[in-house]
Amino acid sequence: MDAERLVELLEQVRSGKIAVSAAVSRLRHMPFEDLGFAKIDHHRALRQGFPEVIMGQGKQVKDIAAIVRAMRRGKSNILLTRLDADKIARLKRLRTGLTFHPTARAATWVGRPIRITGKGVVLVVCAGTSDIPVAEEAALTATIMGNRVEKIFDVGVAGIHRLLESRPRLDAAAVLIVVAGMEGALPSVVAGLIDKPVIAVPTSVGYGASFHGLSALLGMLNSCAAGVTVVNIDNGFGAGFAASLINRV
Amino acid sequence: MDAERLVELLEQVRSGKIAVSAAVSRLRHMPFEDLGFAKIDHHRALRQGFPEVIMGQGKQVKDIAAIVRAMRRGKSNILLTRLDADKIARLKRLRTGLTFHPTARAATWVGRPIRITGKGVVLVVCAGTSDIPVAEEAALTATIMGNRVEKIFDVGVAGIHRLLESRPRLDAAAVLIVVAGMEGALPSVVAGLIDKPVIAVPTSVGYGASFHGLSALLGMLNSCAAGVTVVNIDNGFGAGFAASLINRV
Amino acid sequence: MDAERLVELLEQVRSGKIAVSAAVSRLRHMPFEDLGFAKIDHHRALRQGFPEVIMGQGKQVKDIAAIVRAMRRGKSNILLTRLDADKIARLKRLRTGLTFHPTARAATWVGRPIRITGKGVVLVVCAGTSDIPVAEEAALTATIMGNRVEKIFDVGVAGIHRLLESRPRLDAAAVLIVVAGMEGALPSVVAGLIDKPVIAVPTSVGYGASFHGLSALLGMLNSCAAGVTVVNIDNGFGAGFAASLINRV
Amino acid sequence: MDAERLVELLEQVRSGKIAVSAAVSRLRHMPFEDLGFAKIDHHRALRQGFPEVIMGQGKQVKDIAAIVRAMRRGKSNILLTRLDADKIARLKRLRTGLTFHPTARAATWVGRPIRITGKGVVLVVCAGTSDIPVAEEAALTATIMGNRVEKIFDVGVAGIHRLLESRPRLDAAAVLIVVAGMEGALPSVVAGLIDKPVIAVPTSVGYGASFHGLSALLGMLNSCAAGVTVVNIDNGFGAGFAASLINRV
Amino acid sequence: MDAERLVELLEQVRSGKIAVSAAVSRLRHMPFEDLGFAKIDHHRALRQGFPEVIMGQGKQVKDIAAIVRAMRRGKSNILLTRLDADKIARLKRLRTGLTFHPTARAATWVGRPIRITGKGVVLVVCAGTSDIPVAEEAALTATIMGNRVEKIFDVGVAGIHRLLESRPRLDAAAVLIVVAGMEGALPSVVAGLIDKPVIAVPTSVGYGASFHGLSALLGMLNSCAAGVTVVNIDNGFGAGFAASLINRV
Amino acid sequence: MDAERLVELLEQVRSGKIAVSAAVSRLRHMPFEDLGFAKIDHHRALRQGFPEVIMGQGKQVKDIAAIVRAMRRGKSNILLTRLDADKIARLKRLRTGLTFHPTARAATWVGRPIRITGKGVVLVVCAGTSDIPVAEEAALTATIMGNRVEKIFDVGVAGIHRLLESRPRLDAAAVLIVVAGMEGALPSVVAGLIDKPVIAVPTSVGYGASFHGLSALLGMLNSCAAGVTVVNIDNGFGAGFAASLINRV
Amino acid sequence: MDAERLVELLEQVRSGKIAVSAAVSRLRHMPFEDLGFAKIDHHRALRQGFPEVIMGQGKQVKDIAAIVRAMRRGKSNILLTRLDADKIARLKRLRTGLTFHPTARAATWVGRPIRITGKGVVLVVCAGTSDIPVAEEAALTATIMGNRVEKIFDVGVAGIHRLLESRPRLDAAAVLIVVAGMEGALPSVVAGLIDKPVIAVPTSVGYGASFHGLSALLGMLNSCAAGVTVVNIDNGFGAGFAASLINRV
Amino acid sequence: MDAERLVELLEQVRSGKIAVSAAVSRLRHMPFEDLGFAKIDHHRALRQGFPEVIMGQGKQVKDIAAIVRAMRRGKSNILLTRLDADKIARLKRLRTGLTFHPTARAATWVGRPIRITGKGVVLVVCAGTSDIPVAEEAALTATIMGNRVEKIFDVGVAGIHRLLESRPRLDAAAVLIVVAGMEGALPSVVAGLIDKPVIAVPTSVGYGASFHGLSALLGMLNSCAAGVTVVNIDNGFGAGFAASLINRV
Repeated sequence: MDAERLVELLEQVRSGKIAVSAAVSRLRHMPFEDLGFAKIDHHRALRQGFPEVIMGQGKQVKDIAAIVRAMRRGKSNILLTRLDADKIARLKRLRTGLTFHPTARAATWVGRPIRITGKGVVLVVCAGTSDIPVAEEAALTATIMGNRVEKIFDVGVAGIHRLLESRPRLDAAAVLIVVAGMEGALPSVVAGLIDKPVIAVPTSVGYGASFHGLSALLGMLNSCAAGVTVVNIDNGFGAGFAASLINRV
Repeated sequence: MDAERLVELLEQVRSGKIAVSAAVSRLRHMPFEDLGFAKIDHHRALRQGFPEVIMGQGKQVKDIAAIVRAMRRGKSNILLTRLDADKIARLKRLRTGLTFHPTARAATWVGRPIRITGKGVVLVVCAGTSDIPVAEEAALTATIMGNRVEKIFDVGVAGIHRLLESRPRLDAAAVLIVVAGMEGALPSVVAGLIDKPVIAVPTSVGYGASFHGLSALLGMLNSCAAGVTVVNIDNGFGAGFAASLINRV
Repeated sequence: MDAERLVELLEQVRSGKIAVSAAVSRLRHMPFEDLGFAKIDHHRALRQGFPEVIMGQGKQVKDIAAIVRAMRRGKSNILLTRLDADKIARLKRLRTGLTFHPTARAATWVGRPIRITGKGVVLVVCAGTSDIPVAEEAALTATIMGNRVEKIFDVGVAGIHRLLESRPRLDAAAVLIVVAGMEGALPSVVAGLIDKPVIAVPTSVGYGASFHGLSALLGMLNSCAAGVTVVNIDNGFGAGFAASLINRV
Repeated sequence: MDAERLVELLEQVRSGKIAVSAAVSRLRHMPFEDLGFAKIDHHRALRQGFPEVIMGQGKQVKDIAAIVRAMRRGKSNILLTRLDADKIARLKRLRTGLTFHPTARAATWVGRPIRITGKGVVLVVCAGTSDIPVAEEAALTATIMGNRVEKIFDVGVAGIHRLLESRPRLDAAAVLIVVAGMEGALPSVVAGLIDKPVIAVPTSVGYGASFHGLSALLGMLNSCAAGVTVVNIDNGFGAGFAASLINRV
Repeated sequence: MDAERLVELLEQVRSGKIAVSAAVSRLRHMPFEDLGFAKIDHHRALRQGFPEVIMGQGKQVKDIAAIVRAMRRGKSNILLTRLDADKIARLKRLRTGLTFHPTARAATWVGRPIRITGKGVVLVVCAGTSDIPVAEEAALTATIMGNRVEKIFDVGVAGIHRLLESRPRLDAAAVLIVVAGMEGALPSVVAGLIDKPVIAVPTSVGYGASFHGLSALLGMLNSCAAGVTVVNIDNGFGAGFAASLINRV
Repeated sequence: MDAERLVELLEQVRSGKIAVSAAVSRLRHMPFEDLGFAKIDHHRALRQGFPEVIMGQGKQVKDIAAIVRAMRRGKSNILLTRLDADKIARLKRLRTGLTFHPTARAATWVGRPIRITGKGVVLVVCAGTSDIPVAEEAALTATIMGNRVEKIFDVGVAGIHRLLESRPRLDAAAVLIVVAGMEGALPSVVAGLIDKPVIAVPTSVGYGASFHGLSALLGMLNSCAAGVTVVNIDNGFGAGFAASLINRV
Repeated sequence: MDAERLVELLEQVRSGKIAVSAAVSRLRHMPFEDLGFAKIDHHRALRQGFPEVIMGQGKQVKDIAAIVRAMRRGKSNILLTRLDADKIARLKRLRTGLTFHPTARAATWVGRPIRITGKGVVLVVCAGTSDIPVAEEAALTATIMGNRVEKIFDVGVAGIHRLLESRPRLDAAAVLIVVAGMEGALPSVVAGLIDKPVIAVPTSVGYGASFHGLSALLGMLNSCAAGVTVVNIDNGFGAGFAASLINRV
Repeated sequence: MDAERLVELLEQVRSGKIAVSAAVSRLRHMPFEDLGFAKIDHHRALRQGFPEVIMGQGKQVKDIAAIVRAMRRGKSNILLTRLDADKIARLKRLRTGLTFHPTARAATWVGRPIRITGKGVVLVVCAGTSDIPVAEEAALTATIMGNRVEKIFDVGVAGIHRLLESRPRLDAAAVLIVVAGMEGALPSVVAGLIDKPVIAVPTSVGYGASFHGLSALLGMLNSCAAGVTVVNIDNGFGAGFAASLINRV
């Protein structure tokens, strides 16, 4: 349940369309339902003004489907992340009404139209083609959370001219999400070119001494360019979510 | 040199107060001067709209003083960070005109009045008294960069009621910087209470398995609360800088 | 063989139902039988007053079945831990008489009724739904070891109100087991609310910089709340066992 | 302020010795005073029934003295930990009324007599003479928190007969704190001999591949003996605190 | 080719049974043959007096078979290590004449009778049943290298009496190989009981903070008992080989 | 007290020079005296046939002196290790009768003449001049424990001809101790040249990615040459001790 | 597109065979085409004078095929690396015209004859047979980039005579690539024998404390032999590429 | 002694100026002298054609002076590295004839004029002013080894335009040494701009998650730009040495 729906409820109270006691009852019902295995917190959407989010990893497909069905009753939009190909295939068979985004390893259910509430453009930049799934997860998250989203992919630092050619689009963005694996140098270069917040997302792309993304993570944390903040390895969702909060400051 | 000063120059050109060739010369001179050991980039202030910043660690006191003197000619405000007590003592003797902030391990030179350009309040929260130096570095950075800054200190998660009592101030902030050492849990709790961007700063406070801040850093990167982004261990400056960018989106 | 059974034997000696030489022979037989590949220590139950425990991981199914059969002759209750779905399926076919607990990845054989010898309630709290298998292993262990066990699941620190609503149950417990992955912050918050021993169990839930539970483990070891002790990653059994010892102090 | 003092206050209310409004005022005053740099939480002693604790590390001597003076007004007993020789020397000069315990690197102020509220004996065992400071910190903590405390020092696993000779004292304890550096094997051996809770404290004693206590920490977390829980490296205080909670279950 | 075969050759030279030029030719042929992908060093057996050893891991089955066939021409005995179940199954089909030892994950070809050249008994001790494969690899290696080998299995430090009951056999050994996973404490306890060389072998047995044997490895390197030396994680072969060298000093 | 002194005592019993009760009393006195802070185990020398050993690191100078004086009453020879220059200087002033070995960072007290009981030569080899202190500690340990000791220093693998020129001495040794920092490659090369046990000692010599000896330690554990066993970083004493045990097999 | 082809184009301009506007158009077209998911940078070959390279890992087979087809239009030679057996099998079915090199886990398309532009011989040396795939990747890379390449395989440091026998070939090389896993000692020994640049390639060959190549990597970075530089674990391609640049200095 | 001096000697033999037996004696004397604590290898200069190098770290000042004096007799030029300010001060007092380079933390003795034998320019690039000491060590090494050396300092990736302005000098170099701390991104950007070998030198500049240079090291090893090879953290000497070998291919 998001802020709009709360306002709607209170206006129904004011206009006499719903009794106060009924409103109280509905409000009291809100915090979370008990599905036996998970407490769904409808207030969370209220507090943060965004759709419900479910991380697919570590959950069984049948439990995911049950959570989705319970949430749909709450009318909030839904974003499922970290769904591998196998889970997507099995969820498809369960007729949950979800829309699937295989590259982003995600699914969505948009029961209420998405309203653009973010002020500017959230620009998602990534270094190599192998980083695209994480970049798409970030872009999808920002999109469903009400932002205009643009993308510049495959502009790694080893071919710096590609990035420099995109400078006008970098300058035009309000918030930037920069995704890179291996040495994770791209956020430093981007942040040095502009004066906007940069959210850096390390990916597990690489091998050997990349240590599953540790190298990129450390690189980004040590960025010599001020204005860079960092999220967990492969955490495109977290970057999209933070960008959405920033884009509404 | 910041954007205002560039506009000023160009208006002098338009009004005929300065010859085009002289303007070109001054513009051409801008990028960086050569002090022999370091290229000072006056454009950087222009590009990012903020004062010049010098990291004191790893630099000799006499070199710091030389850089400060050169920068003062550029009329930008100046922020020096990571100055230990010994460097502060020796800089004081060099009559650089700096103002010192010992708790924040920093110094400033404010040649031009600070204008508040940030939209809302930047709120700096810290978990324990040992985290205060890093929190003060963040607060000082955000202040000199033109933000209204407030502070809530010593509200660790082991006494959660202290934090909950501060909830109205948390809700009123535009951007939050949350500083914590040891297990680094405070940003997760704070981000779960509000719907604003949270910049988490791990500190090296702790001992044993804190591994000089690694524990707090990992905790923050793995935050179960969406909307948290992270900077390097003890990097109060980076957090203050990023908050300033976010507060102008 | 537990303490009760030793008393029984000695009382049979006293009442003349069994010859001293036979009792000596049975006592001498106790320490361990030799199955060729493993020495089963019936004295261990005696020394620690609890059922026999077998860790399923790293053992072959046929060896597990043989150990179970040998132990059943000793009449002790039995707990098998760390049985993956495949081992459970294959053990089921071997007709060992075991009862299976798939969520807890465990099995039990209860030949003698479980007597409640723990003083108070052992409360198992977990942060997210993905932590439930480890929490259930802890709960099952404490149950078979003679404790009243209660559970509060899915109360992570990012929605602190859920935890606060459970405060009366937290206060009522004698010993708490707190299970969390990702940043592992829950034990600190819980231990700050109560004045009872808290056993923290880090889980391998998470991705990227969680490093298979290392992040949660470090967080718990660095807890800013006194009274927290920690067991190995995913070691629900160890937590349940320690809680049982504590609950009989 | 501990539970007894709250009862005292309320009884004064009941008997009319203090006006309700004054009681309210004193209760309202309780949560924490503001010293400018740290919020002292008098409720914490109330909630946990123990003295106030201050970690000396990372705090300036003059701030420590100020906190001690403020706390003494609250009449709670006080424990200061992690005071190095230099801080002890400088605190002595400040005439704070503290009693110093140099081996334990600690200080105490006992304004109210310590009452034994722990049920049994807390036994502190350590492996080598270099582990004694951490063991003494644990023993001092348990003592000031109202437990009978005994010690067995220098009984490392390389001379197992020394430990075995102490077996009657091991069996007689209610809770054991086992302190060891290097490979940290002692808690496993002790926990295998008894059926009581064992709190393991790794120390930073060792060199090379001990990695400042990491080796001992990992060894204890992987203990093959059930019933062992672990605290941070060198955290004698945490072990003494947890043992005190356990000894009152 | 081992030392005996070299003596034989030279005696044939002395007695005129073989021409000097032919002997030279055979000697010159010795160093290594070229199979295209691997240089087999027949001199190695000569220099070290032991059979040829092939590590199966990282080699293709067909290459292993080719190496075995080439080596059999050299008449040395052969030991293959680190053969998983799948490689053993496929090697069996290739009719190489090898004898397989599945628990030890090894195979042997004994073309010449094994002569006992080790002075005393090599005793292999292991902590838990999951450590047996590594212990068996060590025992097999020592056996084929000409030692009398004895075994004591499943005597972990959590049940120290099992180990103490075996003390006469510990005292009687010339060299001890002690195998343990988890916290790796067994070698310290064993080395404290005897005055013979102890070779410690950490295993990858465990989970969570065992970090695939790192915990046991660090524990053994930090042993508080002098006389312990350590080999790589799971390196039963290396321990058996070193014990064989020591047993001939 | 070593084995010879026990035999002496028992022969005095046999010959009637000492009463049985007095012998019992002396034997009973043996295990350890209580100095208040450390239990000295005279049996240890008996069990292992070697002098008493005290690790100086982590002990106060006055405690070291007290232990030395107590030990001298037991008439065993004494070896003190890990004494830094400062401790040596302060011990010298305490007139303990010790002989100091500054390069080896050690001291000895030889009350009874050293008897050569080792069979062959213990050869200590080191890679660079910075490794000499650790190599000298190993050599001193082996010397006081009754071995003939030889040394070859500064023969690193980057100048392999130096090592090859020493091959006859390598071949003549019974046991080899090979000391190296940086990449720690020397033991592999040495073990490939000979057929004797090699004890590898990694040192903390190096910088950057040597990580205080971790690089050398890992290199030695992964040695491609069989027959290498490893001790802790900088543990010259442990290597000398193990070599002494091996030289008496 | 490589430098030759640019010269060709410009000469067509000079000779009038192509209009300036058409040349401009083709030049402008060069930087990169947009395939939707990846920007192919034809300039890169121009800038670096070498074929196009595609890393197969982390890319889908159908995307690899699409990139190959697009590149073939550019007429540059193509090298694909890090293709596992499964990807090779599936690529074969797609009829891309590629030539496959299974041992090197690579594929090539040689549309233009390879010209030898490297000055001397690039010599690839490897320590064990398990290192051969990485060594072959390095050799293939150097070959397609226009160098004469030679190989010496299976010359580990544990049998140093094998390496010494190859000394003339080591001396004759212009650049050396030395590949080794486990302790990674080979580059140090090789670099000590010659005065040519040595590129060290650590491999993930090993087990236990090799930590997937970390041990070899650290060993090489700490090489005591000057002149050694290092690439990522298993990065045969990077070594071959760097050797090619060096061979044209 | 370098190659020229050997040729000189042999020509003296040919021309009869020196007797063969004397030449033999001098040649035999060459390999290394024995100073008791270190074998000085005059052949090394011969084999590698460069001056003698001494690493000052870990050596005592008086030993360094003794080595320098012995080497001066050999007439080779000398380079001493890793001399901290204190060692430089004390060496100055010993009148060794050395020239000191405090920024590079080095000293030299140039007894024979340096001849330029390197083909092109070795260009040393560094990211920040704190990286200059390492960069100067690299430059000094390349200079004394006979190369023309140029420098571009303080061109970090956060201000990419500074680097781009230097592009002509980058293009003109034969070999590049790129020095950077923090995230270590500069080598990737440089290598993407040119087609020459790049030697990357990570520095320990940074704090927190830079982990003393580990972050920069990992970043460089994972460089997305082919052609980059890496040396140890802060190893300016190693980079200068390798560049010298490359510049003579």
